[in-house]
Amino acid sequence: MGIRVAVAGASGYAGGELLRLLAGHPEFELVAATAHTQAGSHVTAVHPQLAGLDLTLTATDAAALSEADLVFLALPHGQSAALAAQLPESVKVVDLGADFRLQDSALWERYYGGAHAGTWTYGLPELPGRRELIAASDRVANTGCYAATITLALAPLIASGLADPADVVVVASSGTSGAGRSAKVNLLASEIMGDLSPYKVGAHQHVPEIKQATGATSLSMTPVLAPMPRGILATVTARFAAEGNPRDVLAAAYADEPFVHVLPEGAWPHTAATAGSNSCHLQATVDVDSGRIVVVSALDNLGKGAAGQAVQCANLMSGLPETMGLSVFGVAP
Amino acid sequence: MGIRVAVAGASGYAGGELLRLLAGHPEFELVAATAHTQAGSHVTAVHPQLAGLDLTLTATDAAALSEADLVFLALPHGQSAALAAQLPESVKVVDLGADFRLQDSALWERYYGGAHAGTWTYGLPELPGRRELIAASDRVANTGCYAATITLALAPLIASGLADPADVVVVASSGTSGAGRSAKVNLLASEIMGDLSPYKVGAHQHVPEIKQATGATSLSMTPVLAPMPRGILATVTARFAAEGNPRDVLAAAYADEPFVHVLPEGAWPHTAATAGSNSCHLQATVDVDSGRIVVVSALDNLGKGAAGQAVQCANLMSGLPETMGLSVFGVAP
Amino acid sequence: MGIRVAVAGASGYAGGELLRLLAGHPEFELVAATAHTQAGSHVTAVHPQLAGLDLTLTATDAAALSEADLVFLALPHGQSAALAAQLPESVKVVDLGADFRLQDSALWERYYGGAHAGTWTYGLPELPGRRELIAASDRVANTGCYAATITLALAPLIASGLADPADVVVVASSGTSGAGRSAKVNLLASEIMGDLSPYKVGAHQHVPEIKQATGATSLSMTPVLAPMPRGILATVTARFAAEGNPRDVLAAAYADEPFVHVLPEGAWPHTAATAGSNSCHLQATVDVDSGRIVVVSALDNLGKGAAGQAVQCANLMSGLPETMGLSVFGVAP
Amino acid sequence: MGIRVAVAGASGYAGGELLRLLAGHPEFELVAATAHTQAGSHVTAVHPQLAGLDLTLTATDAAALSEADLVFLALPHGQSAALAAQLPESVKVVDLGADFRLQDSALWERYYGGAHAGTWTYGLPELPGRRELIAASDRVANTGCYAATITLALAPLIASGLADPADVVVVASSGTSGAGRSAKVNLLASEIMGDLSPYKVGAHQHVPEIKQATGATSLSMTPVLAPMPRGILATVTARFAAEGNPRDVLAAAYADEPFVHVLPEGAWPHTAATAGSNSCHLQATVDVDSGRIVVVSALDNLGKGAAGQAVQCANLMSGLPETMGLSVFGVAP
Repeated sequence: MGIRVAVAGASGYAGGELLRLLAGHPEFELVAATAHTQAGSHVTAVHPQLAGLDLTLTATDAAALSEADLVFLALPHGQSAALAAQLPESVKVVDLGADFRLQDSALWERYYGGAHAGTWTYGLPELPGRRELIAASDRVANTGCYAATITLALAPLIASGLADPADVVVVASSGTSGAGRSAKVNLLASEIMGDLSPYKVGAHQHVPEIKQATGATSLSMTPVLAPMPRGILATVTARFAAEGNPRDVLAAAYADEPFVHVLPEGAWPHTAATAGSNSCHLQATVDVDSGRIVVVSALDNLGKGAAGQAVQCANLMSGLPETMGLSVFGVAP
Repeated sequence: MGIRVAVAGASGYAGGELLRLLAGHPEFELVAATAHTQAGSHVTAVHPQLAGLDLTLTATDAAALSEADLVFLALPHGQSAALAAQLPESVKVVDLGADFRLQDSALWERYYGGAHAGTWTYGLPELPGRRELIAASDRVANTGCYAATITLALAPLIASGLADPADVVVVASSGTSGAGRSAKVNLLASEIMGDLSPYKVGAHQHVPEIKQATGATSLSMTPVLAPMPRGILATVTARFAAEGNPRDVLAAAYADEPFVHVLPEGAWPHTAATAGSNSCHLQATVDVDSGRIVVVSALDNLGKGAAGQAVQCANLMSGLPETMGLSVFGVAP
Repeated sequence: MGIRVAVAGASGYAGGELLRLLAGHPEFELVAATAHTQAGSHVTAVHPQLAGLDLTLTATDAAALSEADLVFLALPHGQSAALAAQLPESVKVVDLGADFRLQDSALWERYYGGAHAGTWTYGLPELPGRRELIAASDRVANTGCYAATITLALAPLIASGLADPADVVVVASSGTSGAGRSAKVNLLASEIMGDLSPYKVGAHQHVPEIKQATGATSLSMTPVLAPMPRGILATVTARFAAEGNPRDVLAAAYADEPFVHVLPEGAWPHTAATAGSNSCHLQATVDVDSGRIVVVSALDNLGKGAAGQAVQCANLMSGLPETMGLSVFGVAP
Repeated sequence: MGIRVAVAGASGYAGGELLRLLAGHPEFELVAATAHTQAGSHVTAVHPQLAGLDLTLTATDAAALSEADLVFLALPHGQSAALAAQLPESVKVVDLGADFRLQDSALWERYYGGAHAGTWTYGLPELPGRRELIAASDRVANTGCYAATITLALAPLIASGLADPADVVVVASSGTSGAGRSAKVNLLASEIMGDLSPYKVGAHQHVPEIKQATGATSLSMTPVLAPMPRGILATVTARFAAEGNPRDVLAAAYADEPFVHVLPEGAWPHTAATAGSNSCHLQATVDVDSGRIVVVSALDNLGKGAAGQAVQCANLMSGLPETMGLSVFGVAP
């Protein structure tokens, strides 16, 4: 018998991707999948891509979730803390929301509003020393999707002293699943197809998370919604603080990583190559005119940016091989 | 040590999907992947979604392929026969092309041109009695993508006597990967996005294959190119030949099938739910105005319509569990 | 001073397209644009593509609309009748909704529900004798988008005796703007991109309208939602009732029409070529296997399928050149 | 009789858009449209969206073009100079290529290669004093599409002293028509849909043009190909050089411009709103974390970024109203 897992918030996009990954996972046994308005629905009424999976969504209930050894929380930002508080300490938890990511309560309150619930182990295994921390934790705060994309590109460059942490400019575009499954006019297909639209310009809530994870001290980040269902492409630029080759720094940092690939020279990351996978693709160069470091990073916002990352953390927390049940390869075209 | 497999035509879309599936297959060991103009390239230069796979494409060469226990041919239509003739009998072959699908040489010559190379076991395991034939064969002709979509919808209705084989009208739309990876202006993204375009109207070369596989005697089929990378949606209509419930007939035919799902009543197949999977989704009703049977069928043209189906056949031919290395679940959204 | 026009329902997609066309029309002067929840908004807050147009949406109010010489009603189906009843007879009205299209009250009640409001002149100028009727009418019921697409393809073939009205099978795919601007999960970009999904299979409410307009007596129509913002592509097949060349029949029927183009032989309609225009593209052939007539028809559902058609009718009703303010040419790619 | 115009390079996307605009222009009379491999084709075989236009493409020939009063050159970069040299001085010319944009021959040679042909009046009418220069010129070098997007966002901020010209970072995404109509595998729909891909990272050939037009002295620009047929969205960030409100500076600069719209506060430009139009939409703010100026600019790369801009220049050069034959409003959704 495997390790019993449960998903709270199973009706959203990250929840659906979790169910897909868990249904194919050799060791995790899904014992509960809960939802709010969709409680009582067969899973295929909510996620038709899971036809063949016999599962009914139940109401979100701490007692039912407590039957599991490990619970994934895939709830809207701000809703994890209350539910997590009702789960016994013996149940491990991976929170895909933002509630427990930040160390600084003041920043939480400024960007998200409301009281800060606390700080859990930050779940990005590829940061130095971090996979051991995750493996030793019972509570892990999964990275945000933008934060994962940008941190993997930037953290080694700042850590190595190559990039100036005080001068980072990022523009990152996300597929629409990153905006969630709420029925909003601005997310209708008619509005999105053929369109690129910036949003939260000048003040995105992921900025403090990225600064915390990378050591950047000044970060301009502009997010753009792109006409594709999945994927994030981040262009990360920074001024040099010391001489060096940014691609070499990244290649050294991720040489042994199964899911982070610094591409061959001349090849640039693009989102479709990561769709459905838990991989992040990276490439770096120096801009000839400005002399800035330019790193491009691509991943699947529902994969390495959410559900895949969460399963990777759960594998570590459960003493399983870190790559179990996760695909390195994208589904393309 | 596993079963050694090779892929000829590895640089195309079906070839790339085969590589993805084989890289994750527990028993098949990929020993060669060959290509024409891309010979000598690292696989990631051709299929960037396979970053992390260390493989170089080699020239298409019968001797190299003969090292394998089983060879997949993913070549343009008309090119399989010559290569297959050079492979020893001891090597099993699954041909994803059209060369060996038809029984009637005259039809081959009319629709494809050139001499007919012969007829192999037709590789659609869900047809009655067929998976045993496939398991006993060393040479299997994989279904065409349209043929798989339409045959799964129609064959049981004709076999049961419910549908009139002399009055079948089909309109089927395909994603662009079905048109292959050739550089053609009409396949440019600028031309395709926002566009639906019919092609080969009135005379598609898959018609004789579908008639042969389903028993239809008259078939109007109009194919349409749709602005999406993957997926086929076929609307299959036929006049009733006898009373009955078409959904019941389909549900009975596929009750035990792992990859063919007759959806719950009221739910209709759509392509995105099958992306990346080896599943086919079906639903049927009776049109209130005309009284015609209407069946809608959806699958991934590169999955159940090509590479997935080929792996399913190869599993059967190799004595492996039929579902090994294949996903029932789609990658959505 | 021009002819004063007003738009009720200006916040939807058809309403927005009406505003765009009217803003560039040489003779129509827009005096009011009304909306429901968006009343009070500047037009660019609702339709950002109209930046540069200084207009505020007002509440839907019969008195305000009555200031106009001609009112366009672009309201949800079933809401036109009540408002139309409050407009004085001296105000001309073009209704883009379904309320006044059908002659048969029983069919209205079966397909739409509720009481039938009445029957207005059907607004498809290219039907024989119809543009004179429209020009003489003060109340015109604009065609539905599917009905326009299919009727233009089919009506001449039935009228000429070539096509059997008792055996018509249609599959038609529409872009998402045809589904309106309501916030619904199934219309989210994440659900639609990469996806084809059939809907209302077996019983679409446009069937009686199409039968009435074409003379078809049995019509199987399956609508499909396609991943593009605009456009309808209809594949219309029918059995021959008499010998003849279907393309010749269509070419003769539309020889003098400015907006209906039977394409050169070998060229097939596709939706992108009609985007933003008031044109309909047609082509026909005979299916070699079944011997059925196959006609493909493409138009912009918001253009010739809605707002363009409405302006064309309004031009006729106002004694203006029929083509005024309308584009024959599509915006492509 | 109108002003006679001709288009060389009529088979490409910019050429097709020019034909569309010229076909609807009240004063320009199209007397020749030339092409290379497509010479002899009816225009609708090349641009099906122009069904209804009776025009045959002819071979590119200086003598034929010299019949016109004004010639538009829509040729690949580097091919305009040779043809322009064969046109008599009495024929006005608007070049949509890059050949005559740069003042600095060394930069031309570095970024484009080959000998520099010369410098023509730069065709961006909204730059201070420039529309008068254009009106007085017989030879005008139309802006590049990226350059138009970025220059409109940046030039007033540098000119006013608000933005530091030595610290500009831009990421700009373009629809695929910007990459032209050549048959290339990387531009196939299968590769593009669902994908964002950066290209020419670190060294784009438009950088010197943008620096020349804006006064920027250091410019990091990363271009990204986006899955949409038309549109450019540029995120332009710069460090403050002096205190001030960047939106106010832009609003003042473009207060009287018919085609450049600084959006209401809180509204951000998005590409779909500009499709098919000659408009550019702008908005600006200050990034709260980094304190950088952030401007977002959107336009249609074939409209204000190419053909629309060219017609605007041609209107000026011909003494016509600058807005003639051009639409302020986009075709959306």
